[in-house]
Amino acid sequence: MGAPMCQCLLRTGFNLTVWNRSVGKARALGPDGATVAGTPVDAVRDAEILITMLKDGPVVEEVVFGMGVAEALRPGAIHIDMSSIGLDEAVEHGRSHAQRGIGYLDAPVSGGTKGATSGELAIMVGGDADTFQSLIPVFEVMGRPTHVGPVGCGQLSKLANQVIVAITIGAVSEALILANAGGADCGSVRDALQGGFASSRILSEHGLRMVERNFEPGGPAKFQVKDLVNALKAAERLNLDLPITKLLHRLFNDMVESGGADLDHSALITHLEKFSGSDY
Amino acid sequence: MGAPMCQCLLRTGFNLTVWNRSVGKARALGPDGATVAGTPVDAVRDAEILITMLKDGPVVEEVVFGMGVAEALRPGAIHIDMSSIGLDEAVEHGRSHAQRGIGYLDAPVSGGTKGATSGELAIMVGGDADTFQSLIPVFEVMGRPTHVGPVGCGQLSKLANQVIVAITIGAVSEALILANAGGADCGSVRDALQGGFASSRILSEHGLRMVERNFEPGGPAKFQVKDLVNALKAAERLNLDLPITKLLHRLFNDMVESGGADLDHSALITHLEKFSGSDY
Repeated sequence: MGAPMCQCLLRTGFNLTVWNRSVGKARALGPDGATVAGTPVDAVRDAEILITMLKDGPVVEEVVFGMGVAEALRPGAIHIDMSSIGLDEAVEHGRSHAQRGIGYLDAPVSGGTKGATSGELAIMVGGDADTFQSLIPVFEVMGRPTHVGPVGCGQLSKLANQVIVAITIGAVSEALILANAGGADCGSVRDALQGGFASSRILSEHGLRMVERNFEPGGPAKFQVKDLVNALKAAERLNLDLPITKLLHRLFNDMVESGGADLDHSALITHLEKFSGSDY
Repeated sequence: MGAPMCQCLLRTGFNLTVWNRSVGKARALGPDGATVAGTPVDAVRDAEILITMLKDGPVVEEVVFGMGVAEALRPGAIHIDMSSIGLDEAVEHGRSHAQRGIGYLDAPVSGGTKGATSGELAIMVGGDADTFQSLIPVFEVMGRPTHVGPVGCGQLSKLANQVIVAITIGAVSEALILANAGGADCGSVRDALQGGFASSRILSEHGLRMVERNFEPGGPAKFQVKDLVNALKAAERLNLDLPITKLLHRLFNDMVESGGADLDHSALITHLEKFSGSDY
């Protein structure tokens, strides 16, 4: 998702230096106007703003705090981490940066590659409100930013987002299983429901996948399990019992363990069908 | 919901005769151009189309088959039942009408009084495809009709709709409980998520109720339990096991039994908070 986000920034005229572990991915942005750096430290040396979009918390830790990036940032610079990482990791990264006079916002996104390409990501931002305000012009190039609270709250909102996504996929799955078993046309049911209280982006996009039996990811089920594990960890630390999230974690985990790890998460419907003895 | 649906029909110029058990409700439509009938039989005697919008299956049974309405309809007339009733009841009503040469469509709706007023209901229609085609101009006055399969499939789609609504309310509840417990601003989280994959009409409307702690119904929790009981009955008859629907039935039922029957179904969040020991 980093590439289309960079292209949004370049199109708007931002002065952008890029680095990627796979040098080809960085070089591909050269023709669009990006300066390609040889190392992460070279990329950030003169930067006012560092934006990271990495796999998870340990990778952010390694690149930013293990490869000299944090030390190379000039005081007053701001690190916007748009990766989805753990709540505790974000809080810890913010604290480390603060000791060096570096600003920090955790700003994970929802909307997928499609949203990144069209500059329509939902961006959930935690951190200092004034810092957020000053960076709205940067965020708005990539999507719709919302300040949700202090450092870590962006990640917390992303977890909340993933909880809703996982459970809603379960909801649409059981609804279509019921409709199909009773002789209704699932594609038509999806169309019909899209106009009422059941309407959602999941019904629209993942519901269509279920109707078409197209489970090429998209969002692989194994990542859904990772997100739900992180949500349940956060819940446990906050002494919360979330019974529906727990059930969905169990269902997605069973699906992954029975061979569905790399299918799109909408393939939960096939797991629930087996469970149900339904012959979709 | 019958009154705003009648007003949509009257505005478009349909010739409408109305009857309601509470005569005042029928008379209120007089100034808009409706003919007010003294009995259900008087209402349908010359009708090409009978539309019913009643509480449940037994009430439809009583009015249509217990008060002489079915016998008073002229052959070739069509009964459109827009009430939410049981799958088996719809199939049985269709069969009874067919024996007298009366057409029948089951056509329950989603979208609430708001959707009925603006003529934007989602209308899920089961029955003969040609009969459906011929009545599209009537349905389109009230909303967006979709033919979903043979008789009964409209009711099945409505159950599918209610399954999604119930589970999605649970999803939004747990997501907001998590965000709130971790120090995020729930109103901002709802705003932020509305742009991404978690976006839904439930997040928008019921999420706002949860943020504002406004649990005046709306849709009372006791009706949500009734809908889930009907969905689970249909599932059982079709030999389906729907674990998420079952869990939501249990949660809503607990909520109703602990005093929440007449709160809006979005108040599930308060029940889950107690459950969680969360201090929203």
